[in-house]
Amino acid sequence: MRTLEPVVTTPTYELRPIGHVESSITDRETAPKQGFEGAPEAWLVFDPDVADGIRDLAVGSDVFVLTWLHRAERDVLAVHPRDDPRNPETGVFSTRSQDRPNPVGLHRVRIAAIDGLRVRVNDLEAFDGTPIVDVKPVLSGGR
Amino acid sequence: MRTLEPVVTTPTYELRPIGHVESSITDRETAPKQGFEGAPEAWLVFDPDVADGIRDLAVGSDVFVLTWLHRAERDVLAVHPRDDPRNPETGVFSTRSQDRPNPVGLHRVRIAAIDGLRVRVNDLEAFDGTPIVDVKPVLSGGR
Repeated sequence: MRTLEPVVTTPTYELRPIGHVESSITDRETAPKQGFEGAPEAWLVFDPDVADGIRDLAVGSDVFVLTWLHRAERDVLAVHPRDDPRNPETGVFSTRSQDRPNPVGLHRVRIAAIDGLRVRVNDLEAFDGTPIVDVKPVLSGGR
Repeated sequence: MRTLEPVVTTPTYELRPIGHVESSITDRETAPKQGFEGAPEAWLVFDPDVADGIRDLAVGSDVFVLTWLHRAERDVLAVHPRDDPRNPETGVFSTRSQDRPNPVGLHRVRIAAIDGLRVRVNDLEAFDGTPIVDVKPVLSGGR
């Protein structure tokens, strides 16, 4: 594991969570490595002040959920993918490691149900309590 | 356009850019609305301290580039999509509007060339100077 030397980088930007994930995943050891490997359903719980922003989310649609992986280590630049030492050490920007300089999680999920500020989604790999920072529609071509 | 009332949200998180975009797009009026509508090639210029993190990027591969859309307005919760008043006002989390509470840009691009800390990509819609916050491989299924 290589680490990042502390440096002064300016400017920086402030992420303000818009909600959080409710999930049965509480333990890093048992979490699936990717959402399609059997992650359970989870709820996106939005803050009341962004209600206008989520008003057009629709059941059945695919969205990208962006989270802040608050348990990640930010000083990591190379990892053994999937935490398996048999995998060659790889630069983090070629992996989906949680540990990376800006641990923004990118999750493509399908909306299963909507109940006010609570949105149930399939296949979200994120710890219970993970902050949500954005939601975006999936465009044609998976963009 | 609806706006977000100021509220105290804690905790917040600090994004530290890892590089920036070099692009011929300098003007919001002429920028394409989505990358596949004719955005030119652009360069990702990484900071030297993350060199280890990008060492396994490869020409020809598809990656998600996450940026911080530093010119966006963060107090916007609903917009007319594509800035066209004929489109009904829509919650920002159902749009790709730059204006949103956390203006993280999500760009799926193909790596065209690599020259040290400079990575040339196709179809990146971002202003010249846009901060880069993360790069991730595209997984199967466009995830």
